[in-house]
Amino acid sequence: MTKLILDLDTGIDDTLALLYALASPDAELIGITGTFGNVSMETGVANDLALLELFGRPDIPVFAGTDHPSWADSFSVMPESGRFHGRNGTGNVEIPACARAKAQALPAVEFLVEALRTNGSDELIVVPTGASTNIAAALEAAPDIVERARIVMMGGALTQPGNVTPFAEANIMQDPEASARLFTAGAQITMVGLDVTTQVKLTREQAEAYRATGTATGAFLSDMLAYYTDVTEEAHPTGVPGCNLHDPLAVASALDPSLIDTFTCDIMVETEGAGRGRTIGDPARVTCPSGRTQVALAVDAERFAERFMERTLAFVRRCP
Amino acid sequence: MTKLILDLDTGIDDTLALLYALASPDAELIGITGTFGNVSMETGVANDLALLELFGRPDIPVFAGTDHPSWADSFSVMPESGRFHGRNGTGNVEIPACARAKAQALPAVEFLVEALRTNGSDELIVVPTGASTNIAAALEAAPDIVERARIVMMGGALTQPGNVTPFAEANIMQDPEASARLFTAGAQITMVGLDVTTQVKLTREQAEAYRATGTATGAFLSDMLAYYTDVTEEAHPTGVPGCNLHDPLAVASALDPSLIDTFTCDIMVETEGAGRGRTIGDPARVTCPSGRTQVALAVDAERFAERFMERTLAFVRRCP
Repeated sequence: MTKLILDLDTGIDDTLALLYALASPDAELIGITGTFGNVSMETGVANDLALLELFGRPDIPVFAGTDHPSWADSFSVMPESGRFHGRNGTGNVEIPACARAKAQALPAVEFLVEALRTNGSDELIVVPTGASTNIAAALEAAPDIVERARIVMMGGALTQPGNVTPFAEANIMQDPEASARLFTAGAQITMVGLDVTTQVKLTREQAEAYRATGTATGAFLSDMLAYYTDVTEEAHPTGVPGCNLHDPLAVASALDPSLIDTFTCDIMVETEGAGRGRTIGDPARVTCPSGRTQVALAVDAERFAERFMERTLAFVRRCP
Repeated sequence: MTKLILDLDTGIDDTLALLYALASPDAELIGITGTFGNVSMETGVANDLALLELFGRPDIPVFAGTDHPSWADSFSVMPESGRFHGRNGTGNVEIPACARAKAQALPAVEFLVEALRTNGSDELIVVPTGASTNIAAALEAAPDIVERARIVMMGGALTQPGNVTPFAEANIMQDPEASARLFTAGAQITMVGLDVTTQVKLTREQAEAYRATGTATGAFLSDMLAYYTDVTEEAHPTGVPGCNLHDPLAVASALDPSLIDTFTCDIMVETEGAGRGRTIGDPARVTCPSGRTQVALAVDAERFAERFMERTLAFVRRCP
């Protein structure tokens, strides 16, 4: 059993990542921290609370995080994010549940510090799927947790181009300065980026299987995925059909590292010029690697997709 | 025994690559084709002929290749190339031999086509260490050789920044259009780029060992390497001391693939914008890899450096 904290900007694939975590018998989700990216932090947290209600787990605490990048005073959703995730984060489909729980009073960064202090590094993994702002701030606020912090993040691209510029992946681009600090802090990081997440696809047929459960939850998921598949195929007309399971792959890799093959490589994040937001090997550390950062370069896409559908379908059948 | 053709822009590390090939009992160098990059094609060919004389192998044929990139009418050596290799390509140190042989009348591209036609893909490997112009032209001129062409090239960078721009490695930058065609032609390519070549260093002490042989050849090599080490350390004052064995690693990997670990990844070469010259995974082929392109991501640097010194020192002891 692995304890998880998800640091989400919910978001369509964040919704699927949350669903997968709750549907996984080998995961214990101890909290959600809210970050920004696909949507504002506030929208993401509201979505998290509604989804936890829908999924029958309103007991899981949600913590509001930083609502803007470390390099700016405020945050506006990028047009591309709005296009992919809809104005409400769930593809303009309403979550069929009303949250009764509220976000905790404790700020996300304090919760992360506390959780990393009280849990061993063999017990807890933090999975950020949006801007690196919260997790970078937590590591800076409490240097004592750095050594024990285990992070499996969706973000970056090492061997593939970016998706918001030719060089930058969207999560990193939200706050390159925070990601740069995260990758040099000394924590144990597995980067699950576009190198592998672009290889894991959900087909239209798979997306419709949720509807066939006859539940409101299933209809919501199928509608949301139809939106996501439409925009994905519109953006990549010559690509493999379907939509990408970016964030769920990070959760699945945290629970079962055998799904991915990793490459040990200290990463630097460029913050200047055309390459702003690029994650690339740090030449200063190439001959003396820290061994603390792994980059996923290959994935057993078929095994993951099968497991994703099996777990989430079984879970949705038990939902309202 | 592996037959080799070296496609050189000689060049300090090209000199070392040639030396290593001649010093290797498992290699049969069947010809050198001249390309441009570190120096002009003409200077490189003149250096090749003088070096073959010095190394006691004036019987090996040298073929003049294309003297300018496929995207331009002429070629001028980049200032950075002149800085690293000196105005004559051998660190402003004179090669202590006068070539008696001349370049062959047959153009390099025709020799490459003929050699690839008459040798099996299990027998012959082409090792380009400069601009991709000749080898790309050969594959285009004779589509029938593509399937059997085996290429182990020094060039590119996948997980590390470039060395002439943040994105581009010097050899690819000489003719990105030719490299782009090369990586999509369908030949079997192993890219030995900055990912690994920046990990293989020759120290000042090792460089001086050639002088200790008491030969004119040894003195020439030690003088040339002193120049190369000076400019390398000046350019990277905080890096690991010594100079990089870029091109020799490609030759060594062609002869013994166990020196490197490779990652299967179809490469595209960017030709536009800030990323011009960047070698990056091709997203259009990420879910349907051809399996024809391997990128070296790890190297047994110690084993290679030991073998390099052992073979080349024994060879230099037998030289004038």
